[in-house]
Amino acid sequence: MLVKMRDNVSDSDVTEVVKLIESVGELRAEVHTGVRHTILTIIGDLNDEGLEGTLRGNPNVDRVESISVSYKLPARKDVDQRTIVDVGHGIAIGNGIDVPVCAGPCSAESEYQVMTTAAGIRESGAEILRGGAFKPRTVAGAFEGYGEQALKWLRKAADEFHMPLQTEVMDPSEVGIVSNYADILQLGTRNAGNQRLQDAVGKTDKPVVLKRGINDRYTDWLNSAHRIMYSGNEKVILCERGLQTTDDKHLRNKPDIAAIQVIHDLSHLPVQFDAAHSVGFIRYIAENFHSGVVAGADSLLVEVHHNPKEALTDGQQSLNLPQFDQLMQEYRMYKDIRDQVLASRAAANTGL
Amino acid sequence: MLVKMRDNVSDSDVTEVVKLIESVGELRAEVHTGVRHTILTIIGDLNDEGLEGTLRGNPNVDRVESISVSYKLPARKDVDQRTIVDVGHGIAIGNGIDVPVCAGPCSAESEYQVMTTAAGIRESGAEILRGGAFKPRTVAGAFEGYGEQALKWLRKAADEFHMPLQTEVMDPSEVGIVSNYADILQLGTRNAGNQRLQDAVGKTDKPVVLKRGINDRYTDWLNSAHRIMYSGNEKVILCERGLQTTDDKHLRNKPDIAAIQVIHDLSHLPVQFDAAHSVGFIRYIAENFHSGVVAGADSLLVEVHHNPKEALTDGQQSLNLPQFDQLMQEYRMYKDIRDQVLASRAAANTGL
Amino acid sequence: MLVKMRDNVSDSDVTEVVKLIESVGELRAEVHTGVRHTILTIIGDLNDEGLEGTLRGNPNVDRVESISVSYKLPARKDVDQRTIVDVGHGIAIGNGIDVPVCAGPCSAESEYQVMTTAAGIRESGAEILRGGAFKPRTVAGAFEGYGEQALKWLRKAADEFHMPLQTEVMDPSEVGIVSNYADILQLGTRNAGNQRLQDAVGKTDKPVVLKRGINDRYTDWLNSAHRIMYSGNEKVILCERGLQTTDDKHLRNKPDIAAIQVIHDLSHLPVQFDAAHSVGFIRYIAENFHSGVVAGADSLLVEVHHNPKEALTDGQQSLNLPQFDQLMQEYRMYKDIRDQVLASRAAANTGL
Amino acid sequence: MLVKMRDNVSDSDVTEVVKLIESVGELRAEVHTGVRHTILTIIGDLNDEGLEGTLRGNPNVDRVESISVSYKLPARKDVDQRTIVDVGHGIAIGNGIDVPVCAGPCSAESEYQVMTTAAGIRESGAEILRGGAFKPRTVAGAFEGYGEQALKWLRKAADEFHMPLQTEVMDPSEVGIVSNYADILQLGTRNAGNQRLQDAVGKTDKPVVLKRGINDRYTDWLNSAHRIMYSGNEKVILCERGLQTTDDKHLRNKPDIAAIQVIHDLSHLPVQFDAAHSVGFIRYIAENFHSGVVAGADSLLVEVHHNPKEALTDGQQSLNLPQFDQLMQEYRMYKDIRDQVLASRAAANTGL
Repeated sequence: MLVKMRDNVSDSDVTEVVKLIESVGELRAEVHTGVRHTILTIIGDLNDEGLEGTLRGNPNVDRVESISVSYKLPARKDVDQRTIVDVGHGIAIGNGIDVPVCAGPCSAESEYQVMTTAAGIRESGAEILRGGAFKPRTVAGAFEGYGEQALKWLRKAADEFHMPLQTEVMDPSEVGIVSNYADILQLGTRNAGNQRLQDAVGKTDKPVVLKRGINDRYTDWLNSAHRIMYSGNEKVILCERGLQTTDDKHLRNKPDIAAIQVIHDLSHLPVQFDAAHSVGFIRYIAENFHSGVVAGADSLLVEVHHNPKEALTDGQQSLNLPQFDQLMQEYRMYKDIRDQVLASRAAANTGL
Repeated sequence: MLVKMRDNVSDSDVTEVVKLIESVGELRAEVHTGVRHTILTIIGDLNDEGLEGTLRGNPNVDRVESISVSYKLPARKDVDQRTIVDVGHGIAIGNGIDVPVCAGPCSAESEYQVMTTAAGIRESGAEILRGGAFKPRTVAGAFEGYGEQALKWLRKAADEFHMPLQTEVMDPSEVGIVSNYADILQLGTRNAGNQRLQDAVGKTDKPVVLKRGINDRYTDWLNSAHRIMYSGNEKVILCERGLQTTDDKHLRNKPDIAAIQVIHDLSHLPVQFDAAHSVGFIRYIAENFHSGVVAGADSLLVEVHHNPKEALTDGQQSLNLPQFDQLMQEYRMYKDIRDQVLASRAAANTGL
Repeated sequence: MLVKMRDNVSDSDVTEVVKLIESVGELRAEVHTGVRHTILTIIGDLNDEGLEGTLRGNPNVDRVESISVSYKLPARKDVDQRTIVDVGHGIAIGNGIDVPVCAGPCSAESEYQVMTTAAGIRESGAEILRGGAFKPRTVAGAFEGYGEQALKWLRKAADEFHMPLQTEVMDPSEVGIVSNYADILQLGTRNAGNQRLQDAVGKTDKPVVLKRGINDRYTDWLNSAHRIMYSGNEKVILCERGLQTTDDKHLRNKPDIAAIQVIHDLSHLPVQFDAAHSVGFIRYIAENFHSGVVAGADSLLVEVHHNPKEALTDGQQSLNLPQFDQLMQEYRMYKDIRDQVLASRAAANTGL
Repeated sequence: MLVKMRDNVSDSDVTEVVKLIESVGELRAEVHTGVRHTILTIIGDLNDEGLEGTLRGNPNVDRVESISVSYKLPARKDVDQRTIVDVGHGIAIGNGIDVPVCAGPCSAESEYQVMTTAAGIRESGAEILRGGAFKPRTVAGAFEGYGEQALKWLRKAADEFHMPLQTEVMDPSEVGIVSNYADILQLGTRNAGNQRLQDAVGKTDKPVVLKRGINDRYTDWLNSAHRIMYSGNEKVILCERGLQTTDDKHLRNKPDIAAIQVIHDLSHLPVQFDAAHSVGFIRYIAENFHSGVVAGADSLLVEVHHNPKEALTDGQQSLNLPQFDQLMQEYRMYKDIRDQVLASRAAANTGL
């Protein structure tokens, strides 16, 4: 942290602020006196909002700026640092070569639905199965998922079609049961900031897909990742799923495709892009999906239902099987070009 | 829900959409054919996002609009409907006469701190004690609260100084223990949308202060209140605490003071205004607090610490005891005028 | 417009609201009485915020909803309606086949700079030249463009290298002089909502690139386009350039790539995507650009400078010539695949 | 500006960055080498986004932070600095004692309307008259103001009832004619960022009310004020009028009442609070107005119409004369208490 003193402070004012800083834990302050400005840098592990607040409130302090990031564990230390997460069944997310597509129904509604959908998506090239077992809804009183029964259907389909299973866990008390069936634990947007849940999944050895919390700034999101990793689990995948928008008559959320690049800049963790929730309507999903591929996503997520018109949840953003098959054909074309583009760029070495 | 068909649809197009609607549960559709527009209204209990999505995706449908609110239970049915929540020790929130102030430290740090602060705020006129026992922090690794020990200190202070105790519960597994000590269960901003937690506090008989979730629209917030009430607990108090802001160099959050009036318009539930978090810096708290009083808040919340410079959390937004005493003197002046203003307005009866 | 009456209104309440509506201009109200709801639809050309306000304020009115759009002229009437704008030199924007790239310096700084940059971008495949002559800056007192001298350099380069020239006009009084040199008039973000300027460019016969105003909702942006077209100029191109963001430490703006698809849905006007301002840093431009191509942009915009380190403005988001050449090679690869994808999708006809 | 180098940079890396900085104009760089961090501070007048961009792009630079503000002229230099703007007819804005209320119709619609409304508001205590002569509307084609005729009505009313006149100017070409009639030039939200207009009003000697641009951050707004002052006009009043909101079904804008305090902290300029546009509906105006008074506004703005049901514009947010009279009675009660509160606070001297 860096403290800029107000202009014209006296030496004793500076000394008082130094004392204040050094009274906290192991911190030490360095004073840099220039022609116009006096700046203090704080050395030590500063996890103390109280000190920052006190400094901001000090009449001789003009500005307080963080100069190191709060999210130490997910922060990228050098250009080449990349985390590759092995999610099972030989599938890896983050290796820069494979970009596995995760697909499946919003809610697991029946064994027939799960098996039919899973068979179809596997045939078309999906490598990870998704499906919801616990689905609390915005408004209480509607269908809220088949719970453990749904997990059984999903596990059966995952085994039969050789795909790891990604499914949401909503509460620390459910981490155990969900872990019995799932390969990848997903924290949903509403629960992305739930610290008890972050702690609980951080104590498992399962890969965790951390959706971006509602309107999380990049820093908020990476702080959530930091908390999971702080409990010991480094297998975190960040999932972009769109931001709240004033255009909500036209889009369910506003996809932040630039997040894929910025997160890759700030962090060594891989990024999954949820191309369904981030727009919310079938007719926008394909181009949104491809924009995410082109922007560098490490994995893609879409919702697929063998019969979306009868879907109990999210029918308006679920592809049917022929649509998904078409999407995957398009995806392979774009993915090939992405590889060629990156090779061409590396060869040209223009700094682009 | 209301469905506007595209211009120039045929009768059979309309019939097909009617059939689609009537295929879901107990719904029925009424057709209104005008000179230019054909509009369908849907009769029945519609808790089905799938149908809405399917309708939006139908090529003959132009617009789908909700015309009734999703949050039935907190919605105000007529102008005079008001919920008054008895929070214990003879204190009520929402009666339009009393506007109790809730104060206390961000975190309960020691018996001495809690008792000293509680004595001071009671002396100055606070009627509800607040204090944090479980304080997970944005960045893992810092001080996170003294847990049950803190609850004991707070309970002791609440009893000694005759104030109900408002404290946060973070996880369904902690509802039991917190309920053993607290009079009012608070759901924090990060957990306002946690449906498992909403369900859990909804099954208690404790008053619940529901902070507004990060960037919750009014509808989101009232949907959360609906879920708590749906589980059987009608004693819900909505707490405004500010929204995320692009001015975050200057304000921790941006207070939405208009929310107090709008929520009173939309809902019969009372509103508490958190004058501390909604700005985040001591120098803005007093005017912010008074603006909330004037706007019609049913209760006010501030953080007070007997020695803010040594506070482990939130020192930059905690008043000391002389500041709180001054605030309360000012508050009483404004509250008196608010009562006189409302009486004057009722007498004048201009429709203001 | 559609008016939902409150439940349980009397017939005379409804009659009163009908009278109120019919007292305004040529409007007529149709009453649709159903089992639960009474709904009025208003027939006629309603450009009257006063009536909407009065209706919202009427105690017997529950909801007022627009059911037709305010921006009549840019609104797409049927699926196939597309405007193709001829921008000169044989270049068209919006034909679905060609996707011309517009490039050039932020500011025209010297004849040498303009000619060198124009020669380079033309060689690499750019088809439209951009460059700033009038460049008021956020903070007064800095370099603000070379005015007409700059327009002369740009015109010379446009002629020499056979590219139409796109340049910004800032004030109605400058429309004449800028029109003497430019082929395409650009309204910048700060001035997108300037109605006097909209009127002035609407009276010319030059194609207009209308940048999206700061945080414009789609409706705001299309209302601006409507105003230009209302003055008689139908050659409007909408330019997406990013939205304000709370992540402004990491991005200058947040690109709304989904806007490309949504605008194509709502409007028949073509969309240019400004891949430079929408992120603001060189290292994010290429992927951002390609995401826009893949999402369906009709034209792309980037800033190029023959020596960005010495650029007087926007050096941090200007590509140098080798970078631009590399970008264009990548662009051609992605554009080819976009054409193949669309052909494949049309053949499959899955409704994707 | 302050530049933090990446960890482990070599001396020659630092030297290179110093050279880069010193190659621009009159700038000089000071190097502060600490145990962990190397920090450069830049001395000189830095109005160069290009340098900032180049520094951000330098591989050896970790962070670039502004440590002085861009808006020099409106920035408050010390705690007691306050600008008082004399707006004519003996009325001052910003003296901390008087808080003049500005009222009048959205649009001047007829001599009768203007005179009747002006007489009424004056009688009730308004001290400044407002009214619109040029009223371009969101959607082209509606009533857009009576222009110079309206200015004549307004001037007549202002003279007759001894109030200065505040009215909007929309374009540099209209500054002359509006100045012939008005005492105070208002820049509306849509034109707040119009730099040509800022320059034009900056060259007059009329007080300028600068509305906050759509979603302006405080910094954006103060940069606009700076530009006006840079042209020589120091009589600037900042007018808060609400921000864009995702709650736009319930509020036209979201009032940022905290802006009043923050602007007083950052700037010596006075603040007017527009209590009408910032909510947009009559039923929220009174409490919103009073919240602004309590928060420290130097002037208040509301729309009043002698017959709002027939207003051509903004009927839904215009008070009638009895409502305005009631509002002013309430206002005087709150204003008295505000004075008493500030006196009490000064006497107590607790640092609140």
